[in-house]
Amino acid sequence: MKILVSNDDGYQSPGLIVLADALRTLGEVQVVAPERDYSGASHSLTLKRPLRIRHQPNGFIQVDGTPTDCVHLALTGLPGIEPDIVVSGINHGANLGDDVLYSGTVAAATEGRFLGLPSIAISMVSYTPQHLDTAAQVAVQLVARLREQPLEPSIILNVNVPDRPYSELAGFKATRLGHRHKAEPIIEARDPRGQTIYWIGPAGPEQDAGPGTDFDAVRAGFVSITPLQVDLTRHAALASLDAWLTGCA
Amino acid sequence: MKILVSNDDGYQSPGLIVLADALRTLGEVQVVAPERDYSGASHSLTLKRPLRIRHQPNGFIQVDGTPTDCVHLALTGLPGIEPDIVVSGINHGANLGDDVLYSGTVAAATEGRFLGLPSIAISMVSYTPQHLDTAAQVAVQLVARLREQPLEPSIILNVNVPDRPYSELAGFKATRLGHRHKAEPIIEARDPRGQTIYWIGPAGPEQDAGPGTDFDAVRAGFVSITPLQVDLTRHAALASLDAWLTGCA
Amino acid sequence: MKILVSNDDGYQSPGLIVLADALRTLGEVQVVAPERDYSGASHSLTLKRPLRIRHQPNGFIQVDGTPTDCVHLALTGLPGIEPDIVVSGINHGANLGDDVLYSGTVAAATEGRFLGLPSIAISMVSYTPQHLDTAAQVAVQLVARLREQPLEPSIILNVNVPDRPYSELAGFKATRLGHRHKAEPIIEARDPRGQTIYWIGPAGPEQDAGPGTDFDAVRAGFVSITPLQVDLTRHAALASLDAWLTGCA
Amino acid sequence: MKILVSNDDGYQSPGLIVLADALRTLGEVQVVAPERDYSGASHSLTLKRPLRIRHQPNGFIQVDGTPTDCVHLALTGLPGIEPDIVVSGINHGANLGDDVLYSGTVAAATEGRFLGLPSIAISMVSYTPQHLDTAAQVAVQLVARLREQPLEPSIILNVNVPDRPYSELAGFKATRLGHRHKAEPIIEARDPRGQTIYWIGPAGPEQDAGPGTDFDAVRAGFVSITPLQVDLTRHAALASLDAWLTGCA
Repeated sequence: MKILVSNDDGYQSPGLIVLADALRTLGEVQVVAPERDYSGASHSLTLKRPLRIRHQPNGFIQVDGTPTDCVHLALTGLPGIEPDIVVSGINHGANLGDDVLYSGTVAAATEGRFLGLPSIAISMVSYTPQHLDTAAQVAVQLVARLREQPLEPSIILNVNVPDRPYSELAGFKATRLGHRHKAEPIIEARDPRGQTIYWIGPAGPEQDAGPGTDFDAVRAGFVSITPLQVDLTRHAALASLDAWLTGCA
Repeated sequence: MKILVSNDDGYQSPGLIVLADALRTLGEVQVVAPERDYSGASHSLTLKRPLRIRHQPNGFIQVDGTPTDCVHLALTGLPGIEPDIVVSGINHGANLGDDVLYSGTVAAATEGRFLGLPSIAISMVSYTPQHLDTAAQVAVQLVARLREQPLEPSIILNVNVPDRPYSELAGFKATRLGHRHKAEPIIEARDPRGQTIYWIGPAGPEQDAGPGTDFDAVRAGFVSITPLQVDLTRHAALASLDAWLTGCA
Repeated sequence: MKILVSNDDGYQSPGLIVLADALRTLGEVQVVAPERDYSGASHSLTLKRPLRIRHQPNGFIQVDGTPTDCVHLALTGLPGIEPDIVVSGINHGANLGDDVLYSGTVAAATEGRFLGLPSIAISMVSYTPQHLDTAAQVAVQLVARLREQPLEPSIILNVNVPDRPYSELAGFKATRLGHRHKAEPIIEARDPRGQTIYWIGPAGPEQDAGPGTDFDAVRAGFVSITPLQVDLTRHAALASLDAWLTGCA
Repeated sequence: MKILVSNDDGYQSPGLIVLADALRTLGEVQVVAPERDYSGASHSLTLKRPLRIRHQPNGFIQVDGTPTDCVHLALTGLPGIEPDIVVSGINHGANLGDDVLYSGTVAAATEGRFLGLPSIAISMVSYTPQHLDTAAQVAVQLVARLREQPLEPSIILNVNVPDRPYSELAGFKATRLGHRHKAEPIIEARDPRGQTIYWIGPAGPEQDAGPGTDFDAVRAGFVSITPLQVDLTRHAALASLDAWLTGCA
């Protein structure tokens, strides 16, 4: 089994290293990851400049681009990379609810969809995780299970793991993405030269975080597993839009 | 009516200027746009450094960040900006099928969803558009129609306009997103210093582009209008995932 | 007479626009300037990625690179640009003493040296200049005087202009660069996510700023004009270094 | 003895690692280096955004900024760093003649001048050096010699080492910087989307490269050592400029 591993925290991230090590028990692991932290990169793709790669002593391939660039490059041309699955992470910090839209971790996993293969994005629910090995063990279990018993093709699983010892997990739970309120206001400040600057504020509080959501699952100590899609069409709105448009032209 | 306008080609883009001018016939227009071309930026959000703004002589506010940064900034703190609708574009180049995932134009529109207001992303099906005024007229019609007769809250419309005179449009069509094949291979080259570089290849050819898709509509000369969602949960897979997970833990 | 104009504040800078307008009274002006603010760029040259240019409606050529990139590009290949002189500015903020080493304004001027032609870097002694026309008039005078009576080939003049009406200038003064003390300490802070960040501190106070220096001249209301060289060899140290090295190998 | 080590190729560069290891025989080595390749960065200083550091497992401090940022940060605030000397390198590629102006390696060394301490920039005359240990041995010799018998305060030595075994060096030579002709023309190309791009061309051929220059020394197999200054005033031109200005105002 060949496993392509990437992330958005960069090739030096402890989470990435722990993940790659753990997955080696299941097959051949190939790591293609950004040269630096690209958190918040979403599906950003580098079109205006060429990319460069560097081979690390530990076998990792480092790319001077985004998470999406890394997986795109790996799947459309880097020689010798023909994975059976794409795994992205272990992210330091949760990717829950609306965060998923901005997440480079999830974007890297999603980029694997064109192969018709399963992809997994895996995140720790802590910016300073103490139990990366818990998430690594979860990743190994999910990949092994997918090998034994595949889910539908191109499935993308968004996995969030509470930061606790494996033995203290409450279990695994299939969830839907919750939703947040609008983000906190921007933070206005002045730089040392007196000029006005703005920091993007923190994500908003949870709005839809009840039973069934990923928010609720991790709060209760479960590993939250949300199946994702990439079809952004709001199919349910097609009929009413059609009618509405008749009044337009 | 207050209209927030942004884009991903940058505040200097002719498409943006034409759009802002046209929408002024409907109400107050506020433009908050990136300082340079951010095509392919997707929902990328700038978290590691602060943002700066600059007021242009023409009233536009220029941000040294991504399309998502622009709309986020506008909606979470820039004083005096309380729009009734967000319009992003006019993009030079189509945003069809899977392209939508990477599009900064669509991301800017999407960022308006937290307000419970409608958003429109509008693109010309040409990298060197000759008929920007056609798309501008389409934008005015859609915004006017939304004001008269609102669609469901938080609706996001992804609009693609053929590059032809308005009178030669075949009409408006509600569509779903088509799908592309895997992208073309990366293009390996050498820089003038002899080092290997890689360019991301072109988007793949159309795979699912039959009747009902956005690809099909614009090919037939229609304005394609796709309602988008931001809920990435693959709800149809939840039950089977639940069963599958019982074998996992 | 053909005059190449650039700067480091970017092609939108009022200082640049005022300068280009004023110099048009002397000959043909061609502007090639960075797309955004590159203050502090020094002689930074972009070698790892290609550059792109954009023609502005006002005839300016905008480059997505550093000040040095701009002049380098203009002098080694952009068609139709064969200047008799390079003028860089008008910078918003002084370039005095050690600042010159970091200045993109001075770097842009310096890049003209390979042509054996004179170059001028011109800066206002204020970050928020009220009298850009004073500096513009100084620039016109210097360029006109260089045309009448050339100085030695490849001369680079670093000009700093007090921010006051032209009639209130005390005169022109040939100066040497003064020196500053070590910079102020870095400013440690936390970003909104709690992570430690560091801002480069302000430039240090003046150390060598007595009679004859540029610091002294502008303080007294003079236009300070320092002839610069690009030969960084410390010739006076060659003999003692030679002797010292005999004990080394 | 405390030695601050930096470079412009980034903290992962083999040249940096070999240098730090070799200098540990002389005292305590502290490495503060850029997170990625910053070749060509010159004295570029990051003023518009804050910097972040990361401690590497090997004790290196990595900065998300330029070579100048690294040494500036180290000398104006990072706790516990009070070096007796600054050494920058080992650069992969020569820094000869006019190259010095653009070199991040030399800029990092130069930034140490405010301490009144000696600084050394050391480069291999090869982009793919085979004999980094030769340069490391040269660095050790020079630092040891400076400790025994100091040169004048704030001396900056620009050292270029031929890529050969130490035993095959022809000796050490004090040199002046040579000069190059104008750079080769820019290289115009098209990106995969058909847009015009420009690559900065190679450095120009040698113009002033005769006896006494750094070009000549390395060609003859010597280690070239050039004492540098940072006073950019062209003192010899001050008198004639003074006279010339009388005709100006």
